[in-house]
Amino acid sequence: MAFTLSAADIWSDLTAVRERSPLVHCITNLVVINFNANVLLAAGASPVMAHAHEEVRDMAGIAQALVLNIGTLDPYWVESMKLALAAAAVRGIPSVLDPVGAGATPYRNATLESLLAVAAPTVIRGNGSEIMSTAGAAVKTRGVDSSAAAGDALVAAQALIARTSGTICVSGETDHILDASHRWARLSNGHPWMTRITGVGCSATALVGAFCAVQPDPWRATTAAMAVLGVAGEVAAEKTQARGLGVGSMAVQLLDELQLLDRATFESRLKLELASW
Amino acid sequence: MAFTLSAADIWSDLTAVRERSPLVHCITNLVVINFNANVLLAAGASPVMAHAHEEVRDMAGIAQALVLNIGTLDPYWVESMKLALAAAAVRGIPSVLDPVGAGATPYRNATLESLLAVAAPTVIRGNGSEIMSTAGAAVKTRGVDSSAAAGDALVAAQALIARTSGTICVSGETDHILDASHRWARLSNGHPWMTRITGVGCSATALVGAFCAVQPDPWRATTAAMAVLGVAGEVAAEKTQARGLGVGSMAVQLLDELQLLDRATFESRLKLELASW
Amino acid sequence: MAFTLSAADIWSDLTAVRERSPLVHCITNLVVINFNANVLLAAGASPVMAHAHEEVRDMAGIAQALVLNIGTLDPYWVESMKLALAAAAVRGIPSVLDPVGAGATPYRNATLESLLAVAAPTVIRGNGSEIMSTAGAAVKTRGVDSSAAAGDALVAAQALIARTSGTICVSGETDHILDASHRWARLSNGHPWMTRITGVGCSATALVGAFCAVQPDPWRATTAAMAVLGVAGEVAAEKTQARGLGVGSMAVQLLDELQLLDRATFESRLKLELASW
Repeated sequence: MAFTLSAADIWSDLTAVRERSPLVHCITNLVVINFNANVLLAAGASPVMAHAHEEVRDMAGIAQALVLNIGTLDPYWVESMKLALAAAAVRGIPSVLDPVGAGATPYRNATLESLLAVAAPTVIRGNGSEIMSTAGAAVKTRGVDSSAAAGDALVAAQALIARTSGTICVSGETDHILDASHRWARLSNGHPWMTRITGVGCSATALVGAFCAVQPDPWRATTAAMAVLGVAGEVAAEKTQARGLGVGSMAVQLLDELQLLDRATFESRLKLELASW
Repeated sequence: MAFTLSAADIWSDLTAVRERSPLVHCITNLVVINFNANVLLAAGASPVMAHAHEEVRDMAGIAQALVLNIGTLDPYWVESMKLALAAAAVRGIPSVLDPVGAGATPYRNATLESLLAVAAPTVIRGNGSEIMSTAGAAVKTRGVDSSAAAGDALVAAQALIARTSGTICVSGETDHILDASHRWARLSNGHPWMTRITGVGCSATALVGAFCAVQPDPWRATTAAMAVLGVAGEVAAEKTQARGLGVGSMAVQLLDELQLLDRATFESRLKLELASW
Repeated sequence: MAFTLSAADIWSDLTAVRERSPLVHCITNLVVINFNANVLLAAGASPVMAHAHEEVRDMAGIAQALVLNIGTLDPYWVESMKLALAAAAVRGIPSVLDPVGAGATPYRNATLESLLAVAAPTVIRGNGSEIMSTAGAAVKTRGVDSSAAAGDALVAAQALIARTSGTICVSGETDHILDASHRWARLSNGHPWMTRITGVGCSATALVGAFCAVQPDPWRATTAAMAVLGVAGEVAAEKTQARGLGVGSMAVQLLDELQLLDRATFESRLKLELASW
């Protein structure tokens, strides 16, 4: 294994987000747009949400990263995402795609395919079925329709890497982050209640954007963002449960932890494994 | 009175929501879209928000219930609601309509009329003036324009039942749930601060959708959803006030209570009266 | 200095908001739409969010104030704002404009210019660079292109006053509120964490709308709204920090303080200076 990534490395990336406060342009869904903005602000980044066709290229032109999320897509917003993704690719800033609900409807699959046809996102982050569906759409275009049936999100992730040359994050109880250099990070932090708060997965994607804005290695940036959210989430859950409270309180606490997380807590809790694939 | 509904019955419906986690497709307003999703998640359901014309029928096709809310309507979203309502009717899944702001503008009244012309919602839930305005629009179509002037939300509810054959919920200090079998439930739980948090009424409607997804009797499902929200709301208000806090904290606590509400608390607090109308 | 404004005056305006619960029609951005509604409710006002072209004039016709915010503008919403602004001007209700992100893209600048061409808002509230950009656009139209380059938000505010005859609020560590009668209020309340919660600035604008609805002097109403938010924000920050919590908790606490703020706390904390410009 010819690569390393330490807790100290990740901490230095979070410190960079906090110190440099990168501008992250999000074209995201209507459910999470407020929570994502607050997550980015809590972590130290500067969010800007903008979707007008007249300005998405200009906004991508002043941002340090672009985040796309198809959760509540419609044709106008899909076109916004295409325009912004093309602008980000021309300018060379990192782009992160969250294929929310991939596989749920043919329209989502077609949209994902049309986005991938514009430019390869630097990072794609989704849960297992979303990554499998996204890869299925991609593979189908190349005349192969079996990857989704393979039933294995990691195989799907590898298929997406073959297409995009980018970093793929499959999130779940364990998060897997893979890239074209065959690097594979596994993160085991987090808490089941994170799935009981709307927008935590989408916020992970937004954080990946913020980390990519300050860390030029997308695989490292993605791993760092997922690690920080996972640790912040499990600390938030534990504190919430210790007070006898529930998921409403946990969402608030999660923002607090993203802001106030300290190095000793982070490094002592991080559960990171590295491998080659 | 040839029917019953006990606290234990309602508790079993909440248990079914928590265990079966029904998929509830919401086409709702931009103000409450996040809070509604979190309310559904806290109660144990699975929300999906989708409005693209290209996919609303598909989404209604995989959901166990459809929730429509006209709070921030515009022509695109109204068409989304019509497409989804038609799909839900064909498929036979329950549909719940929240006529937010009915009566405030002619456009809202015309929209409600056009929605009712597509299909009769399984349940309509609104406050007194919203139910009266919705009934007024309905009655007008039938050549009678006096029901709204009758000034009585319960008369309006009965007029709506005559048109839709569905369940009507008039919410307020006392919630009234009536159906075509002349069943009438009255709930007296809740707290005045629930009106000081945006989206609590809309969240009631979303919860009605979740309960209709697991309980085939819409009148019982609606009564159960309103009962659970009312008890959770009054517990949240009491805990919040005991800590000297306000409506911001109460909104968070309400999510906690929806998740953590236990049977003993619910059954001891429930204020339910049954009658025939 | 031929004018006065006391803490007691401001308190009486907040009392009027709480007692009269004015209806405030907001056409605002998708990020803050929920938080703004909750801020207005916590302060005692009644928010209504509506943007359909078919009803914005009707809604502005029943509201006591109109609030426009271009944060997530697109052509449909810009037209909504124009229709509502024209209706508010005809009817004579106060209108408040928040030029979010002015200067970030040419589209935002062009939109602001087109809004100002419809009618002069009663109040414009933005941070320094937003006010400078808005004034620059205005001045350019009149053949002068140097005000933005002057690098001075107060000069820009004065230029905007010359154009609109309205009240201009430049918010920041110190808030400046100026009007055509050469009145100048400076407020030094608040807390840096207020910039770490999305939508606090936009909520300030929404509150200005609520205060303008009950206080016919827009300069006084604007100063009152900014003063109340500043004091509520600093109390919320102090309580949050005393508990070792962060910006997530502070957002919740801010709503609580807006609801529960008492006269003694407000008057003892208010940092208001008056001058002529």
